[in-house]
Parts: sequence; structure tokens; C-alpha cells
Amino acid sequence: MAGEFDLISTYFSPLAGPEGLGLIDDAACFSTSSSEDIIVTKDMLVEDVHFRGQDLAKMIGYKALAVNISDCIAKGAKPYLYWLGLALPNNTGEDWIREFSAGLNGAQATFDCKLAGGDTTAITGPKVISITLMGKVPKGQMIKRSSAMVGDDVYVTGTLGDAALGLWCLKNDRPQASGLIAAYQKPSPPVAFGQAIRGLANSSADVSDGLIADVGHIAKASGVGAVLHQNYLPVSADAYQLLETHPSLWPKVWTGGDDYQTVFTAPSGLQNEFSRLAEGLETRVSLIGEVTAGQGIQLLDQDGQTVQVTSGGYAHF
Amino acid sequence: MAGEFDLISTYFSPLAGPEGLGLIDDAACFSTSSSEDIIVTKDMLVEDVHFRGQDLAKMIGYKALAVNISDCIAKGAKPYLYWLGLALPNNTGEDWIREFSAGLNGAQATFDCKLAGGDTTAITGPKVISITLMGKVPKGQMIKRSSAMVGDDVYVTGTLGDAALGLWCLKNDRPQASGLIAAYQKPSPPVAFGQAIRGLANSSADVSDGLIADVGHIAKASGVGAVLHQNYLPVSADAYQLLETHPSLWPKVWTGGDDYQTVFTAPSGLQNEFSRLAEGLETRVSLIGEVTAGQGIQLLDQDGQTVQVTSGGYAHF
Repeated sequence: MAGEFDLISTYFSPLAGPEGLGLIDDAACFSTSSSEDIIVTKDMLVEDVHFRGQDLAKMIGYKALAVNISDCIAKGAKPYLYWLGLALPNNTGEDWIREFSAGLNGAQATFDCKLAGGDTTAITGPKVISITLMGKVPKGQMIKRSSAMVGDDVYVTGTLGDAALGLWCLKNDRPQASGLIAAYQKPSPPVAFGQAIRGLANSSADVSDGLIADVGHIAKASGVGAVLHQNYLPVSADAYQLLETHPSLWPKVWTGGDDYQTVFTAPSGLQNEFSRLAEGLETRVSLIGEVTAGQGIQLLDQDGQTVQVTSGGYAHF
Repeated sequence: MAGEFDLISTYFSPLAGPEGLGLIDDAACFSTSSSEDIIVTKDMLVEDVHFRGQDLAKMIGYKALAVNISDCIAKGAKPYLYWLGLALPNNTGEDWIREFSAGLNGAQATFDCKLAGGDTTAITGPKVISITLMGKVPKGQMIKRSSAMVGDDVYVTGTLGDAALGLWCLKNDRPQASGLIAAYQKPSPPVAFGQAIRGLANSSADVSDGLIADVGHIAKASGVGAVLHQNYLPVSADAYQLLETHPSLWPKVWTGGDDYQTVFTAPSGLQNEFSRLAEGLETRVSLIGEVTAGQGIQLLDQDGQTVQVTSGGYAHF
């Protein structure tokens, strides 16, 4: 393989903004404004945990950045800069690196952010991708996890379960489920929606570990509980089609993870406002439940019976 | 092992500053000032590449943060916040995590910075530690790699080769070389010195890949060359003692890496000023060469003959 510095200048320097100083220094440098806050998020992806060795490098690059974007936009922030840590086995071909960087480039264009630095190293083991992403938000306006209020409505963007069902299709050799597989391969977090609901939403998080787990994170951080309604959960036509023949897969809708949508809470009475905002931003938003006193997340079926949730979402440990 | 969220609240939340929001949100958030620039650096450490599996977890934690500090302070910046990515095999004991976090805590206290967030994940393979560190510097005053001038003197802080010789001692079962082994296990980058030379130094970098390689990075980024003098290189008494009986290890002084000192260039005539500054900050500084027109790094012995440098420093690929 070419040397580390050659690989950086060939494949990564073209992705860098001016803050990255051409990726020839030990550090990036950028100016700030006292009217904005900086928010920072970090997601690591490990081969065979977060992606499969046989997945296309371009897909892996796109997804590695998109899952970090998902966290950033759920906070109401605008993506700005990111740093890339990359541990690759010595037998990684230059083709892989070219395609991986092309995937990053695609995600940069979709989500409007730039590379600012990073580190590459060898590893005897699986590929590891560690991204730190920075976004900007007007001062004091980050939408936190910890500020859900009892009585809030709970909303989610997009549809749920597609990515987890897409991965199931890949593992079970059903390539015809192209919409679901695309949802697994190329997350599309609602990039402008988080900024649109600043000042309206009380709390927000992204759906990455699974709906129940992520609403659970909001609830725990806010010291509240939540009730969600199974038949309000947004499910795509592709997902419905698969679930009709494989009803045992239904729990993937609320525990599957990898959705990269935004779940948020807001005072009641704003449903029309959010629908209007979503429509203008080519996403959808669904009211799926309400914040309650107490603790824990309860999922109710259409008869008002509690659905047993066997897994609280994807846990890496 | 305990769950991811329990581990975070037990071992990592106590390390977090207020910007980390208790590590219960998807992102950290901090305010900025328009009178300062933010600089960001990122170093990944992989087991069996950057540390040994049998190294003490506390040492690994300390070192993981210290090597990032080294980059930050070489830019003239004051360390501020860091983000921790941690990929651990499922059989990692909670003891390891406790000791690792204690090591981080020690380095935080030494270098005055706080944890602000991160991500933990499982891996089937070696441990991976990915740290992104942020520092602050008065606006426009970052000391870059790319601004060395022909005629500059070249200086380095501390002594060279101790860590690489310490690792050699560990591998060759010479536990009596405790000073050298300590240099490998617990880097002590000159934390305040980088801030003291702002406005005096033209260019700077940390010595992590080996002196020749890192002066090479400055030279390449600046479009210049450099001549270094072998008998000016600062070597500790412990290192001399080992080198007397093992002269074949001498090249580790200029190519060994892991020094975490600062190498910088400055207009000639400032030697006394830098010595005075170093003395007040309990470090030492040595004039070791000069910046030349052209390109490449030449190492001269005391007779003015070129020393053949077989390795340009540690390259991971």
C-alpha cells in the first residue's frame, strides 16, 4: 500500500475544508463566534459490529459520516466539521480507501460539512472508523435529551424498522427488498428538520439503538416515562409487505435500531405545525405517544395492552 | 460486564466537565469566544501497535491522553476538552476499565483538561482508543508546521530516545532501566512551554514519529530543508548509560519516536530567551540545527559527515 502521507494527500486532503490546513499540520484550527454554541458528537464503527466486511467501502464511508450527522441534527445543530480516525489492516487495498473516501465525499455533499483532520493507523483485526463531528447551533438553543416534560407529545421522523429489516433481508438473501436494503446501506437522517424544530421541541435524540431504547434515553435523562402506541408507529410500504409474510419481525420496528431518524418531544397542540414543517423539508413526522410521570417506556397495542419488549435496543456490551 | 450506560456513569461521568452534560446526551455543548481559535487534534491508539496488551491499563489511559496533549501544546494551545472513543473486546474486565479511567483522570489533572463525551463499542480484536482533543489559542496565534523560514534555528525540548529505549528495555527484560521505562509509560510533554513560545517560534510540531520524521514534516509543509547535528541532540544520563554498552541503539535517539517533546524553529538569536523560558517551566530546550533552503533532513556527526538515517521514523503503513 502507498504510505500514510500519500494516502492522505490523495484521498483525504480533497475532502478537507480550509480549517483542516490541508491536513499537513498536527491540528485543525477554526474561528468561532460568541453568538453560537459548538456541539460535538462521536460515533465509532467497527467491522462486524456496525457494518459487514463484505459491505461496499463506499457505503461504509457514507454511513460512517451519516450516523454522526444523525446525532448532530437531532440536537438542532447544523453540521460543520468532522475528524476521521481510521484503523485498517495492512492488507487493505488502495481501492478500498478510494471507495471509502468517495462515500465520505458523497455524505459531505448531502449533509454540507467538511473533513478537518484525523489519524490513520494499522490494526491486526477488524477495520475501525472513529468520527468526531462538530455542529453549530445558536447560543443556548441545543435541543437536549434531558428536558422532556410530562404531558409532552412524542414524535418521530421518517419510518421505523426499514434498516433493521433491510439487514435481515441481506442476511437472508432477499435482494429484491431493495428499499429496505437501501435504508440499511444509506441512512437519510432528516438534515434540516432538527434546525426547524428549535424553539418548539422540548427534547430530542436520534433513533440509532432502536425506538424504545432511544425514547428510554430521553426519559431517563429527563426523569420521566413515556407511553408509545404501536399502531401509530410509522412503517413504510416496503416494511409492511415483508411484515405481512414475516410477522415475527415486527419487533424490529421498535427495537431494531439503525433508523437514524429523530425522535423528539414537544408540548401538545403542535402536530399541524410539525406536519407543515416536515412537508416543506421532504420528510414526514408522526405523533407516536406521550410523556408521562414516572419512569420506563410502555408500548401499547391497539387494544391498549402492553406489548412485551424483549430487548431494549441494541447494546454493544 | 456491566452495561454500557452503567460503565459510563461509574467510570467516565466523573471525568467530565460541564460541557459534557453529564455524558447523558448525544452531544457535548460549549460556548466560544470570538477572541480565540479552537484547535483540534486526534490520535488513535491500537493495542499491539501503540501499546502492548500487557501494559497496565492505568498507564494506557494516561498515555492515550498525553499523546494527544503533546500535539495540542506543540501548536501553542491550552488543552481544553477531549472526546473518547473506546472499542473493547467483550472479555475486557471491569478492573481494566476502572484502571484505564484512573489513568485518564491522572492525565487530566496533570494537563488540565476534561472529558466531554465519546462512544464505547465492542470489538472482536485488539483494543482501540480514539481521542479527539480540543485546545484554545488566542486568535491567529496557532504555531503551524508550515511556517518554518530558511535560516531559522531548530530546537527541541526535553531529551530524545528515552521512550524508544525504554520499550527496548521492556522487550529485553531489563527492568532496572526504570527512568527509560517511565519515559515510555508516562510521556511528559512540556505542557506550558508551547504557550510560552507563541510569538517567538515560527513553526512547531510534536516529536511522536521520531525526530527526523517530525522535523521532516515541518520541512515538507514549509517547503524547506534542515540540517541537524548529532552531537547537539539532548540525551538523558539513563540513555547514555545504555548507549555506551549498546551503541547500535543510537539511531533510536533520532528515529525511535514516542518522545512527545516539542520541536520548533525560530529566528536565530533567541537561544538565551528560550533557555530562560524553559528553566522557568521546568523543562529544557536544546538548539539542534538550522533550517536550510532545499528539501530533506540531513543529520551530521561531529566531523560534519552525513549520518545515514535508515528509517524516517515510525510509519504505521
